[in-house]
Amino acid sequence: MNFKELENGSVTSPRGFRAAGVTAGLKPSGQPDLALLVSDVPAEAAGAFTSNLFAAAPVEWDRKVLRTGAPMRAIVVNSGVANACTGQQGAEDARTMASYTAELLGVTATEVFVSSTGVIGKQLPMDIVRHGIGLAVKALSHQGGEAAAKAIMTTDTVQKRIAVEFELDGRTVRIGGMTKGAGMIAPQMTLCQNRPKQATMLSYFTTDAAIGREALRSALGHALEHSFNRIIVDGDTSTNDTMIVLANGLAGNDVITEDTPQWYQFVEALRHCATKLAQAMVLDGEGVTKFVELNVTGTADDASARQIAEAIARSPLCKTAWYGADANWGRILCAAGYSKVPFKPAQVDLDFDDVPVVRNGLVAENADEEAQSVVLKKRSFQVNLKVGSGPGRFVLWTCDLSHEYVNINADYRT
Amino acid sequence: MNFKELENGSVTSPRGFRAAGVTAGLKPSGQPDLALLVSDVPAEAAGAFTSNLFAAAPVEWDRKVLRTGAPMRAIVVNSGVANACTGQQGAEDARTMASYTAELLGVTATEVFVSSTGVIGKQLPMDIVRHGIGLAVKALSHQGGEAAAKAIMTTDTVQKRIAVEFELDGRTVRIGGMTKGAGMIAPQMTLCQNRPKQATMLSYFTTDAAIGREALRSALGHALEHSFNRIIVDGDTSTNDTMIVLANGLAGNDVITEDTPQWYQFVEALRHCATKLAQAMVLDGEGVTKFVELNVTGTADDASARQIAEAIARSPLCKTAWYGADANWGRILCAAGYSKVPFKPAQVDLDFDDVPVVRNGLVAENADEEAQSVVLKKRSFQVNLKVGSGPGRFVLWTCDLSHEYVNINADYRT
Repeated sequence: MNFKELENGSVTSPRGFRAAGVTAGLKPSGQPDLALLVSDVPAEAAGAFTSNLFAAAPVEWDRKVLRTGAPMRAIVVNSGVANACTGQQGAEDARTMASYTAELLGVTATEVFVSSTGVIGKQLPMDIVRHGIGLAVKALSHQGGEAAAKAIMTTDTVQKRIAVEFELDGRTVRIGGMTKGAGMIAPQMTLCQNRPKQATMLSYFTTDAAIGREALRSALGHALEHSFNRIIVDGDTSTNDTMIVLANGLAGNDVITEDTPQWYQFVEALRHCATKLAQAMVLDGEGVTKFVELNVTGTADDASARQIAEAIARSPLCKTAWYGADANWGRILCAAGYSKVPFKPAQVDLDFDDVPVVRNGLVAENADEEAQSVVLKKRSFQVNLKVGSGPGRFVLWTCDLSHEYVNINADYRT
Repeated sequence: MNFKELENGSVTSPRGFRAAGVTAGLKPSGQPDLALLVSDVPAEAAGAFTSNLFAAAPVEWDRKVLRTGAPMRAIVVNSGVANACTGQQGAEDARTMASYTAELLGVTATEVFVSSTGVIGKQLPMDIVRHGIGLAVKALSHQGGEAAAKAIMTTDTVQKRIAVEFELDGRTVRIGGMTKGAGMIAPQMTLCQNRPKQATMLSYFTTDAAIGREALRSALGHALEHSFNRIIVDGDTSTNDTMIVLANGLAGNDVITEDTPQWYQFVEALRHCATKLAQAMVLDGEGVTKFVELNVTGTADDASARQIAEAIARSPLCKTAWYGADANWGRILCAAGYSKVPFKPAQVDLDFDDVPVVRNGLVAENADEEAQSVVLKKRSFQVNLKVGSGPGRFVLWTCDLSHEYVNINADYRT
């Protein structure tokens, strides 16, 4: 690794970013519910958004402003209400969030990204939102990353943020990030302006690196595919999933262009931040008690390995067995077997961490159920499934399904 | 309807079928775990089996004997152990179940179907199975349908059986059926010997109708598509799903051939039995407190409507909201939106029973959340989703996801 993680890092760790998190009053709980992130100077931007047909109004706004290709200045985020399935009024409210923020910051509306997360189908109470934006602008600070990370939370139990630092052309470059999301998590996001994919996860990255827009876009795409697009909590893909990165160039490095050594260094660091935040999201998923790394190998291609991994990660029977630390490997093979990927059952091997469970489609000789059970009782473990000798492979991070998940979601709105 | 349901009907309601259900000792609970169903005379047969790659040993056996095209005599079923992922030993054990049953009945092994349901990956304790087969042969009776329906249960809480009666060519014809299955239910079964599909649901039908094999096969296919292949409990498709129908001709009607009025009458009655049993299976699904009929309409074709219905039926967020009687319609639209079926969000209407929820993609005018909530508190209700003006439609029966589901599956094996 050519970078180091900063202690207590956040989106305000890179130079020239201010942030705030305030209580506007959208959440009945009185918890912070409005975050604002601002770059002191115009910043290059890239974004990826949900592939759900019911993309929320703020997602549509963000796609539009990103398409202008112009530098960006700010991101305003509310939690509590998703502004999804809200029609023309929702579109107007998203635009108003941008224009009101822009007005107070002295920039233009199309320089402001907007995100919302929370209940679908409710209109935003705009008086409360405006009030919150006013508070947030006043609270902006170069140390505001932590407050912002808190204000974007919904059913999250911990704030999720990170920052790394590395050298580029003799300059110190930093990348900061924050994310939220605990339910409705199966992101399949698509890069805006090109190939698109999807979460409600919201993730924001800042960097003071100088980097061209196209290089930033491809860096985000690469980081996304190795992070948020390979996690599944419940398997529901949200209407609001958003990943945005802002790069303001204040580190003073030579502008990074694609496929240069500097670009690879930047991508490695960005990917690290995104992966760490994605994994933290799974671990903090609704009711999650186990973090499971699914490694599927031996398929004809990576897409097939992914398809098998997704079938397992979405299986309520696999997820409840993990919750119960039950070494019921038949459910894992069963899910692989209905994934519609062709393979030979007699070539299947399965391990929990490095403990053999299945060999050649049958229970492993000298299988030690005690040892298997020890693995499954850990907070975090690997399920390693080999279905043949092909070169395809995929790693996916997922979790168990617990009583607490049902508690949280049987009555989310009250 | 050209038929009537019989009170206390079962697989022994049609003439010439004997059945038994006994306790072999496979279940730690001491509940009945071995069922036997026998036709007094050779019977035409048709079957459909799981599409899971890890098809269990008895499924492979059944496919093989069905391919011979010869008449069949019996079905032997054990619960407690699935005989799936059991390799060569499992294949031998399935064959032994058939041959031992055949020996005691004085028929040949290839005239005997075999089914197993229970834990995957365990070898059958064949001494116990043989013991049970011996008991079952002795217990066979023309009134044994109820005992058999009880012996095939696993996590089922009630036995599920039915029989109907109708007139054909002046003769009284009967169809009887029984089914089991509460978890690992998302059957996608395929007809054997032709187009195949999948559950562990096990379903057996008997009839004293005289019907040609091809006509029986297509009747089963039709009934299957309108019953077991359109239910989803947890979304996991089992390794053992089986649907078999035996027709012994003892009613003395003219042999039914395809696409005759008699065939349609037979199909209507068979479909009724299969649909009733499939719906009963959902209502008795693991931890189920709500039965939900999903009606998706307005797509380009039926397959697209099915794809949307399946996304909703598999969504943990929709299922937990139903459990909580929470009118959180955003989750339903969200699931439709990630189903990968194209439609226009602004054309979407949603009703709970006949209570308007969404119109044109937005919350319905004068939406009455109280009235919605009354519907969702019922034990059984409809979710009616219209996504456009196309001719495509699909009805799927599904259920909620409860604490009890997690209880049952977090520690199924102990």
